[in-house]
Amino acid sequence: MNSSVRSTVALRWEATRLAILDQTLLPHREEWIELHGAADTAAAIRRLAVRGAPLIGIAAAYALALEVAALGAEAARPGMELLRGARPTAVNLAWAVDRVWDAAQAGGADAARAEAERIEAEEDAASGAIAAHGADVLAGARRILTHCNTGALATGGTGSALAVIRELAARGDVEVLASETRPLLQGARLTVWELARNGIPVTLAVDGAAAGLMRRGEIDAVIVGCDRVAANGDVANKVGTYTHALAARAAGIPFVVAGPTSSVDPALESGDRIEIEERDAEEVRRPGGELVTLADVAVRNPAFDVTPAELISAFVCERGVARPPTTAAIAALLAS
Amino acid sequence: MNSSVRSTVALRWEATRLAILDQTLLPHREEWIELHGAADTAAAIRRLAVRGAPLIGIAAAYALALEVAALGAEAARPGMELLRGARPTAVNLAWAVDRVWDAAQAGGADAARAEAERIEAEEDAASGAIAAHGADVLAGARRILTHCNTGALATGGTGSALAVIRELAARGDVEVLASETRPLLQGARLTVWELARNGIPVTLAVDGAAAGLMRRGEIDAVIVGCDRVAANGDVANKVGTYTHALAARAAGIPFVVAGPTSSVDPALESGDRIEIEERDAEEVRRPGGELVTLADVAVRNPAFDVTPAELISAFVCERGVARPPTTAAIAALLAS
Repeated sequence: MNSSVRSTVALRWEATRLAILDQTLLPHREEWIELHGAADTAAAIRRLAVRGAPLIGIAAAYALALEVAALGAEAARPGMELLRGARPTAVNLAWAVDRVWDAAQAGGADAARAEAERIEAEEDAASGAIAAHGADVLAGARRILTHCNTGALATGGTGSALAVIRELAARGDVEVLASETRPLLQGARLTVWELARNGIPVTLAVDGAAAGLMRRGEIDAVIVGCDRVAANGDVANKVGTYTHALAARAAGIPFVVAGPTSSVDPALESGDRIEIEERDAEEVRRPGGELVTLADVAVRNPAFDVTPAELISAFVCERGVARPPTTAAIAALLAS
Repeated sequence: MNSSVRSTVALRWEATRLAILDQTLLPHREEWIELHGAADTAAAIRRLAVRGAPLIGIAAAYALALEVAALGAEAARPGMELLRGARPTAVNLAWAVDRVWDAAQAGGADAARAEAERIEAEEDAASGAIAAHGADVLAGARRILTHCNTGALATGGTGSALAVIRELAARGDVEVLASETRPLLQGARLTVWELARNGIPVTLAVDGAAAGLMRRGEIDAVIVGCDRVAANGDVANKVGTYTHALAARAAGIPFVVAGPTSSVDPALESGDRIEIEERDAEEVRRPGGELVTLADVAVRNPAFDVTPAELISAFVCERGVARPPTTAAIAALLAS
């Protein structure tokens, strides 16, 4: 298997070579970086050159396979731990690393590589199924708000929430409102770029404008991705997501979460126990790169927030729909 | 009267000369601009060199007085209309212009100037009373979230919401979380700067992070200013305010609005009828000045949103407190 048979657009795996599209440079430049093992891949994940919960799982899987090929299954342990801890919130990362690690311990380098390729293939296939289920859930919605970037840049296939939007666009008229997603502006930089390339009408707004537009009846539905889904259906996702969920509830419109089952963490009872990554203060002090505040001002910069299940109309994954995402509904999906 | 007896920090009026601190350059540079009449003052208001609902009222009042002094009361009409329409949402602007215009028609240039000086003196006095009432309302709250900038830079005195925070800090320990306030980053640029100068501990966060921090129990109360208060207590304020109100309600913490009675528009039945200014797309496309998205992407950029009265714990003005701000409570304050 190689990337030519898959739709992954931001990562290339060919036999023994791994490369990623440096997403920090989009939309201005498209530059690829070759990665060689755990250390440089973990660094690329931390600085968000490769991002999106499913895609960082895939990237880490391949990086660990390279590490095992170079050092052997046992000596790859420090690299495994480095990759597993590169970012704490998305569960896909640990899930993918654990799968490749177990394969390596059982079958060595060839088994590790095969497992990584299997993960990419599964995530690729998942996005098609997510798209179909999600478009059924949102049938009739035309003006869709989404947050952050959850498209082909974030996953092994066409994405999670953005894959649903593409499927809706294939079925009928869709207009997207993309919230810019401070601090790192994935909505402005990536979602706008991706939708424009796909010919889907997109309008950009600051994060704080979304609630007022919902209140004024300008949005039919909200759909977002997820970094970790707890057993009770609580969802950790990019900071600002919870705000959109509150506003959607107040406006009486659906708030839908889409993602592969690799984002579900059945061991985690509720979202309150999800570790929230706190990122560098400079991301906040320098929007778009320019210092706009006092250079030494204290900063809170949580990369994620938790949306309680009670605000979520439906959780859509490749296996179907949990509506609403209660503990029983999530468990039934995982068991299916 | 001249500026030396008042606390207005971002506008200077001396006899017949008007100057403003160019707030677009803060916190990096402190540069004053002399204004000569309606045209340059309206332009300064539109580009937010002078901003804050009470302060744009004061600036427009002086500008109209200058216009009347130069052209006479009748010939100043086009200038009056230009000033009155410079920005549509804050009601203080029309209120101040109308007062000076009426004075000019009745008593000419001297009466116009005296009325403008009276407006500044009233707004100056108002902020002290707002501070005292607001600090009573928020007694016991230590960790305060505020949005945009509502301090001495925005008014004729020490401010509205930020004046309350300064009073709370004078009475005991206070820590402020300032939301950055995209698109124009008044929280990051102005509130951080102003609180640091006042020695009040401040932490900066992106707008989308506020709701999650409230949910995690890290905020005791929210206080914001207002650009227009409808007769029923609905409040138009800087975009992103409504989001904070929803999150405060969900977290079970007070959400307080502070402003002078000049921000109340008793003729306006509800907030749904407030005209919301839509500003330039470049504010959204270029956070901090740098293009971060496609140069031609469509943008929605409402400068304000409306928070319904039902989400507001109290409206604090110089005459007292409406808690909650119902139609009857607002009317009683105005009549007092």
